[in-house]
Amino acid sequence: MRKKIIILGSTGSIGQQTLEVIQKYSNEFEVVGLSGWENTKLLKEQIRFFKPKIAVVKNADAAKRLKKEINNLNNVKILWGTDGLIEISILEEVDVTVVAITGIASLIPTFEAVKKGKKVALASKEAMVVAGELLVKEAKSSNAQIIPIDSEHSAILQCLKNEQKDSVEKIILTASGGALYNFTETALKNVSVEDALNHPTWKMGNKVTIDSATLMNKGLEVIEAKWFFNVPANKIEIVIHPQSYVHSMVQFIDGTIIAQIGEHDMKIPIQYALFYPNRMSNNFSRLELTKVGQLTFKKPNFNKFPCINLAYHALEIGGTMPAVLNGANEIAVNAFLNSKISFSAIPQIIQNTMKEHKPKYNPNINDILDADYWAREIALKFCK
Amino acid sequence: MRKKIIILGSTGSIGQQTLEVIQKYSNEFEVVGLSGWENTKLLKEQIRFFKPKIAVVKNADAAKRLKKEINNLNNVKILWGTDGLIEISILEEVDVTVVAITGIASLIPTFEAVKKGKKVALASKEAMVVAGELLVKEAKSSNAQIIPIDSEHSAILQCLKNEQKDSVEKIILTASGGALYNFTETALKNVSVEDALNHPTWKMGNKVTIDSATLMNKGLEVIEAKWFFNVPANKIEIVIHPQSYVHSMVQFIDGTIIAQIGEHDMKIPIQYALFYPNRMSNNFSRLELTKVGQLTFKKPNFNKFPCINLAYHALEIGGTMPAVLNGANEIAVNAFLNSKISFSAIPQIIQNTMKEHKPKYNPNINDILDADYWAREIALKFCK
Repeated sequence: MRKKIIILGSTGSIGQQTLEVIQKYSNEFEVVGLSGWENTKLLKEQIRFFKPKIAVVKNADAAKRLKKEINNLNNVKILWGTDGLIEISILEEVDVTVVAITGIASLIPTFEAVKKGKKVALASKEAMVVAGELLVKEAKSSNAQIIPIDSEHSAILQCLKNEQKDSVEKIILTASGGALYNFTETALKNVSVEDALNHPTWKMGNKVTIDSATLMNKGLEVIEAKWFFNVPANKIEIVIHPQSYVHSMVQFIDGTIIAQIGEHDMKIPIQYALFYPNRMSNNFSRLELTKVGQLTFKKPNFNKFPCINLAYHALEIGGTMPAVLNGANEIAVNAFLNSKISFSAIPQIIQNTMKEHKPKYNPNINDILDADYWAREIALKFCK
Repeated sequence: MRKKIIILGSTGSIGQQTLEVIQKYSNEFEVVGLSGWENTKLLKEQIRFFKPKIAVVKNADAAKRLKKEINNLNNVKILWGTDGLIEISILEEVDVTVVAITGIASLIPTFEAVKKGKKVALASKEAMVVAGELLVKEAKSSNAQIIPIDSEHSAILQCLKNEQKDSVEKIILTASGGALYNFTETALKNVSVEDALNHPTWKMGNKVTIDSATLMNKGLEVIEAKWFFNVPANKIEIVIHPQSYVHSMVQFIDGTIIAQIGEHDMKIPIQYALFYPNRMSNNFSRLELTKVGQLTFKKPNFNKFPCINLAYHALEIGGTMPAVLNGANEIAVNAFLNSKISFSAIPQIIQNTMKEHKPKYNPNINDILDADYWAREIALKFCK
């Protein structure tokens, strides 16, 4: 019998690639639900092709419009908003929930799916960053599985496969370094939006590309890694690897390093998450190391890129602080993208916001949402 | 209870390093037997320190001398020759047999230990090269485990750990390229013994260092890999990686490459073999990729180094042909080390010997020994 799958954020880049993978394995998966926010044109095409039972859109208006346009095709039920996302996430019949929604909006559906004991393939960084402690706790009691789609965490999962839990010496997260790694400290102060968006290896959305340039992206991944793999922050190291072919590594207590290496193709970690722990054959392009020629590794410069330190610091403090880090970062990056603040103001705004926060420990889901909301308000003030 | 272990070839480089590892884990292992051929001085020290019940030396004279010198310390029993090696290899009480004897002499004790269903940690290339098919067959029926100590095969074993058998797309064996990789074809014709012994990364014995320079070493490892991992020759690829930090890799059917990376320290694969499948903590020096800076990869030049093709060819023919390849190679390398033949004559002599051989299929142990003996005689003639 085919596994029933829903994809939240099916019109985004990861969502589309997930559907590409599913299309190749149509004997294995049945798409039961899809959600898309802005791009209803694409969502419509996806509904036509994959024939889900339910689709979720942004609001009642969009739902009404979509219903009319698809002319009640296959009796697809159209829901909207966060309530719609929750309803689809906890559907009894669903085996696998792919969460590929951008931003903090991913949190509630992830939380609900985890509470329901689903297998959750998680592409959205934010959910694990802001609520990792809570999600891990809930997953333990509901028997949910949370499997990373991020290429770095997928790599770590593969390096750890069936190794003893206590044999990890450290996790080595690789970072491309982003668009600005070789800029001087002076040059970094006057970086243009265009420069910061010029990522050397991965083609991604604007927010993530700026996070990559500030290295906040890697800081957020450190927080994720802590929760995904139950490894303390002082055992998670960042190494700059500009070619981005080594997706991450694990060093074990015997000194051995195991690395996962491959093309810049998100379909590989997506497929791995969908079929975990099995590998499935595919015809994706193969990396040839002899064509690549060389792989290089450098220590990151924490002084030039203070966002990394802020992330480690937020993780160390714990509680609601990672949610504040994430919320303030989103506001600051947005302000930079809109030319309201300079590149070097991004970490300052985050740091200032964190300084004002009194973290709440063992937060519940509402505490986390409150902290996120609070952080955005405060950060916005600092952007003025 | 401590595991009972014997080390065949304890005075060689791998044997000594095995004892170093065992010394660190004296709560885990009890050394029951040791064997040494030339260096009886060191063997004597090892007997004093590890207090085995049995030791094996080259011949009756050496046994008599050793007995006298150690003054019957701990009532250690001194045996000699191949019979001695066999006796020690099949000792009922032994849990782990480490085979670190140089050359074809490793074959019979390995074969006997495997027939007895022992856990064999195998450092000697020759046994698996000349008799892989037979050893694998015997191990299957006796439930013996043959675990590689070679850094490349240890790496592959780690990359394959708990992956599905049918998920391997190819094995990627790394090769330093040896001392002469960047020599031109013309320069290779007049290479001196000193040049060929000048290995860039690993410090090893003369025979292995020349095998590394001709790339025959890698050819022999292809044959070993076929038998250790049951992967056909056309799925075993060689990649030149001059820094020798990536000890080997496996590419899976989903396109993912898993690599094992570490220092140039044979104690790491030795320890891995002794405790397989568990990892044990140690204080060996750690590789820092950010200090190494870069890892490079090139396609090997099969025209410049025809020994690789000869090895693939011998494996394809099968039966006794790999034994002939190995025997002829040993003679040719020895002749080169004694300045009797040129560097480029090595593959010619092997090829000429292989051409004259009529392989026997499904060989038994004596067929293999006969083929080895035959190959040495023929190759010797070609050396004149």
